[in-house]
Amino acid sequence: MTPQPQAQPGRGRRAGRRAGQSGTREAILAAARAQFADRGYDGATIRAIAAAAGVDPALVHHFHGSKEQLFTAAMRLPVVPSEVLMAALAPGGRDPGTSLGEHLVRTVLGVWESEEVRGPFLGLLRSAVTSEQAAAMLREFLTEAILGPVARAAGLAQAAAADPGQASVEFRAAIAASQMVGLALTRYVLALGPVAAATPDELAAAIGPTLERYLTGDVRAAAAGG
Amino acid sequence: MTPQPQAQPGRGRRAGRRAGQSGTREAILAAARAQFADRGYDGATIRAIAAAAGVDPALVHHFHGSKEQLFTAAMRLPVVPSEVLMAALAPGGRDPGTSLGEHLVRTVLGVWESEEVRGPFLGLLRSAVTSEQAAAMLREFLTEAILGPVARAAGLAQAAAADPGQASVEFRAAIAASQMVGLALTRYVLALGPVAAATPDELAAAIGPTLERYLTGDVRAAAAGG
Repeated sequence: MTPQPQAQPGRGRRAGRRAGQSGTREAILAAARAQFADRGYDGATIRAIAAAAGVDPALVHHFHGSKEQLFTAAMRLPVVPSEVLMAALAPGGRDPGTSLGEHLVRTVLGVWESEEVRGPFLGLLRSAVTSEQAAAMLREFLTEAILGPVARAAGLAQAAAADPGQASVEFRAAIAASQMVGLALTRYVLALGPVAAATPDELAAAIGPTLERYLTGDVRAAAAGG
Repeated sequence: MTPQPQAQPGRGRRAGRRAGQSGTREAILAAARAQFADRGYDGATIRAIAAAAGVDPALVHHFHGSKEQLFTAAMRLPVVPSEVLMAALAPGGRDPGTSLGEHLVRTVLGVWESEEVRGPFLGLLRSAVTSEQAAAMLREFLTEAILGPVARAAGLAQAAAADPGQASVEFRAAIAASQMVGLALTRYVLALGPVAAATPDELAAAIGPTLERYLTGDVRAAAAGG
């Protein structure tokens, strides 16, 4: 895992050296994009991406950190989703008067309202809707890098595990994702009148209680039928 | 509005005559698809569709009914969405022990679980996600043919109007749509594990209370801030 000495970031060195590093960075990102597209998020490996870019795997970690961080950079997402979500879910991460659900909706909308973040995110969604391969990549990324951490976040797992008649944390995180993906689609893609016109605060007030219940409230493991 | 005499359905007439009628029907549907795509759902008119197909507007009504019914046929949707929703929302349209929200989710899933219905619906969604023009068409169709009738359905309007601090029926219907569109996307397109694996009953139990609250419960007109 030790980066090769010649790959250390070279602030203050001459321009030619910096251009070379920037070229290597870009070559890694291009290889990552191709690998994620071909093999999905789960199937792509740092080792294979490094081989395709002609560099040592340690250099990939050195430049781009974790697999999620590499994916985020390759897809040109300006933020790492799990970092934003973990900060929002952390104890003490919100005002005392705000529910977890409302805070989550407001946090995610705060990110999406920026055109430079929304563009790449909607690009991923567009690809997923039109290509089965891209759908698999986004599904795996959502599951591993977003839903997993959300489901394991402090407090949620205990709340769900306390009653075996209640739904699993994975199901809870997934239906919360269904509401947020639907919000993105109706607000930014379909531009459905009242959802597109509402302020983030109005949406947080309306949709926050839904996420609150999905993640921490009463969601039965199975319907009673009929 | 009287259909032209020669256009009456001709059961029992000879095959050549039936083929001619079937050709006219298809010509109208092709003209409708082109008009809806070019001008959107609101901008397309029965008159312009009839002119493009070279028939009298009365014949379009005679063969295909309302504008929504014509759109439904042109997009090859095997059901008319507002008819399904109105039946589900009608007083007495559900078991006494089932909430309106749960009944709605189960009804919509009952339609979507059929591959022949889901295919054209997902086709509309795919087009909308990749083309601004198709997005406008789907937005207008959703607003006029689905959200309007749902918002006006018996009981919902009164419940919302009783308290001026509560959200409008249009906003309620639109956020309900955001949840259902997100459910379709995560279950059928992304195939997100727990949402794809759940039974319609499990999803109705989990998501029904959300629709119940969105349509008839406490949804504030604006957030208190913070």
